[in-house]
Amino acid sequence: METPEPLTEDLLLNGRVRLLQPRYGYRAAIDPVFLAAAVPARPGERILDLGCGVGAAALCLLARCPDVVVEGLEIQGPLAGLARRNAVLNEAERGFAVHAGDAARPPAGLGGFHHVMTNPPFFESGSGTRAADASRAMAHEEGGLDLAGWIKAAVKLLRPKGRLILIHRAERLGDILAGLRGRGVGDVAVLPLWPKNGRGAGRVIVSARKSVRSPLRLLPGLVLHDDAGAFTPEAQAVLRGAAPLVGEEG
Amino acid sequence: METPEPLTEDLLLNGRVRLLQPRYGYRAAIDPVFLAAAVPARPGERILDLGCGVGAAALCLLARCPDVVVEGLEIQGPLAGLARRNAVLNEAERGFAVHAGDAARPPAGLGGFHHVMTNPPFFESGSGTRAADASRAMAHEEGGLDLAGWIKAAVKLLRPKGRLILIHRAERLGDILAGLRGRGVGDVAVLPLWPKNGRGAGRVIVSARKSVRSPLRLLPGLVLHDDAGAFTPEAQAVLRGAAPLVGEEG
Repeated sequence: METPEPLTEDLLLNGRVRLLQPRYGYRAAIDPVFLAAAVPARPGERILDLGCGVGAAALCLLARCPDVVVEGLEIQGPLAGLARRNAVLNEAERGFAVHAGDAARPPAGLGGFHHVMTNPPFFESGSGTRAADASRAMAHEEGGLDLAGWIKAAVKLLRPKGRLILIHRAERLGDILAGLRGRGVGDVAVLPLWPKNGRGAGRVIVSARKSVRSPLRLLPGLVLHDDAGAFTPEAQAVLRGAAPLVGEEG
Repeated sequence: METPEPLTEDLLLNGRVRLLQPRYGYRAAIDPVFLAAAVPARPGERILDLGCGVGAAALCLLARCPDVVVEGLEIQGPLAGLARRNAVLNEAERGFAVHAGDAARPPAGLGGFHHVMTNPPFFESGSGTRAADASRAMAHEEGGLDLAGWIKAAVKLLRPKGRLILIHRAERLGDILAGLRGRGVGDVAVLPLWPKNGRGAGRVIVSARKSVRSPLRLLPGLVLHDDAGAFTPEAQAVLRGAAPLVGEEG
């Protein structure tokens, strides 16, 4: 398939990651950076980026944790192609293998990951919300998965005790937690990203472990902007300093 | 039935509410005060306190909103009796009517409320959590309801567009949101109560409106204690000043 044009080259993590991506349609902004920051990866572990797009989260994770192996699964061939180009561009091709394929029917042999991270498509929901970007929603309608199906597919690709980490719009929190029910996961942690103090969460990062039974935690999360509209020091630590996102203090 | 002994008389809302309650077993602390603060009641409205215990939330709500009518439903006869005594003690017997009865089989004619507020019993859950207080859990096992059943009963007692407001342990958030699914409610709002800055939520106040389709909001919530362990000014405004709990600034 042909690579979509025109492209831009953008910088993430203060220039540590270079990212070719289509100028139009869904574009990686801060979500994949926060997603990668929320993955508690340790050296030697295998991580899947489900619906990896052009590889933003994968490359951010490798920038922080160079001693892991990331695989990406992306249904849109042109984006998978760009993810491969981005792996080369960042000299990460040994750490980042990209599969063009469907989350609903993952390639044979894919599975057993220590972590599955995912920024799921903004599916149309039945609850009156609209897809923020039609092309992004469309991509995965091909796969026939809704959010619950996406989560089910993600959990299936984990090894026991493996962790799913996803970032999504906060308004889908009910759907996310519902999608995790009956999947044999526990230790669910909800980490809100607050646009600024005193405002409702825009995004949530939800993680859960397979075959673990600990109760849910609602974590304090992180405030993105100060009252002047600038990123807070905590947000900058993640976005520019590649700091990991931690759940709770002390 | 006999009133359980011994009793204590405690003060809420800086002394505006006097509360007789059993010395042992579940005792009203700050949960019912925050629950009442989260009910956006307007003059003339009818509010049900489902599982009202000795009437703490009802009396706190009436202290802030004297021009509403609160009814309480409580399965434990001795607690219902104490709720009636507390109504008299607070000269609120015209605004607070107590029914001794089961949430699973509410008295005929009960329903059509503008708001149903509830501090559900700390049911044993299937997810490895334990009841914080066995007597409180036991009370409602008689009724045969689990948390989902409790929520279903609460929604049934609302008029269309009416609002359910509940307070519960944050670790039950997934169960609460699951319990709301398929109940025809929307405009779900999750308001966390943070024990202190940087710590996971201990309680959540979840509200939802019947026959409304707005998306879920995860609200910033309120930090209860400062680093020295004292109540924050925001918490004191609710606990001592009977301030309403509001969702978002501006």
